[in-house]
Amino acid sequence: MGVGDPESLTHAASRALAGADVLFTVDKGAAKADLNALRARICARYARPGLRVVEVGEPERDRAPADYPAEVRRWHAARATVWADALRTELDEGGRGAFLVWGDPALYDSSLRILDDIRARGLVDLDVEVVPGISSVQALAARHRIPLNTVGGSVHITTGRRLADEAAGLDTVVVLLDGAAAWQGLDADQWDIYWGAYLGADDEIALAGPLAEVGGQIAAAKRDARARKGWIMDVYLLRRRR
Amino acid sequence: MGVGDPESLTHAASRALAGADVLFTVDKGAAKADLNALRARICARYARPGLRVVEVGEPERDRAPADYPAEVRRWHAARATVWADALRTELDEGGRGAFLVWGDPALYDSSLRILDDIRARGLVDLDVEVVPGISSVQALAARHRIPLNTVGGSVHITTGRRLADEAAGLDTVVVLLDGAAAWQGLDADQWDIYWGAYLGADDEIALAGPLAEVGGQIAAAKRDARARKGWIMDVYLLRRRR
Repeated sequence: MGVGDPESLTHAASRALAGADVLFTVDKGAAKADLNALRARICARYARPGLRVVEVGEPERDRAPADYPAEVRRWHAARATVWADALRTELDEGGRGAFLVWGDPALYDSSLRILDDIRARGLVDLDVEVVPGISSVQALAARHRIPLNTVGGSVHITTGRRLADEAAGLDTVVVLLDGAAAWQGLDADQWDIYWGAYLGADDEIALAGPLAEVGGQIAAAKRDARARKGWIMDVYLLRRRR
Repeated sequence: MGVGDPESLTHAASRALAGADVLFTVDKGAAKADLNALRARICARYARPGLRVVEVGEPERDRAPADYPAEVRRWHAARATVWADALRTELDEGGRGAFLVWGDPALYDSSLRILDDIRARGLVDLDVEVVPGISSVQALAARHRIPLNTVGGSVHITTGRRLADEAAGLDTVVVLLDGAAAWQGLDADQWDIYWGAYLGADDEIALAGPLAEVGGQIAAAKRDARARKGWIMDVYLLRRRR
């Protein structure tokens, strides 16, 4: 579903949606209502009228586990069981179900792993077709009209959790899944930042500048936006200053 | 223009193309004829009938310079002059020109830098709007039905030239602009590879497996494809084996 704006879908994606018999939704948390509103707008434009929407339940998750990867694996396995039940119950033999993944399903999304798990465990006999979508990383670069890479340089995409450990030696770092303001762990004089939140939505925010000048302002904007809306999804690019 | 398939364009991109007064093309080299054919197919579907297409010339470039970044800067400046002349000559005041960039304009493409240079040097008074497109990186992940990242892991996007220096400590590396087979510089036992060429086209090729088993086969496929077609555009993901 790209960044959520119906215009950000590819023609391939809207065509796939138009061919779906059932739309499965798997949202949770504070963004759920807003995401469902985006999905409804996308379906109104592209899906067959009256498309059946089935909400798939979410197993409980330990958000602060001792062993993070192990807990994620356990949780994914529990999700696979729930998804398989939904697919088996709601789709006829040969039926087509759609999952509208926010952004691109290849980037920090677990849908493909869960579907792989369903196939590996033989829970449902599935064919999976992946239709790429515009990710927030691309929307960020487009909004700021910048290339992700420097000339001939690399682009390191990581999470807020890993940023401080990985930034050494890099000249471009893109950060997703930062619940706080992980850039505050870096030497602010070394970096420029290009930041965006709710990219592609009517209330998108974008700020950029030398990290030493705008880092605090962005942290405040992030706190304010989260307080106002109840959730935030943001992404930023850090470029080492020369 | 995404990966070149008209279906891979977003609705925003096809709408922007439909609103263009002139399409500027800037291709060069062996892929030029094939790329122009892709653009013609995209324009036939989305552009206003009779859209004027203007080919922008390419200044000479030194492909093996002593100082690579300096030569790239010099070449970009020369391109900016040529592009500015074309924009000034071909567009009326307030006119809209389009550049159909292959993939996403934020990833290993110089169009945005050239347009910035035109603005910075005051050559033409321009507003630039960037419409993201599906990149070969996303097409690769979709074709192999894999996420780019491991659970909570980072994704390092780099060039063939830099791969050997940067792979240490990474678990996912995506490589573009590899004129040869840079994976041959790695310890093959450490990695799985997911490779694709001409992704999104009718003759796309995709191969995957343990690097030690398929690395040679992919190098051969790449040589054969380049010999057959006269050019190749490929991309691959390397995932460290556990």
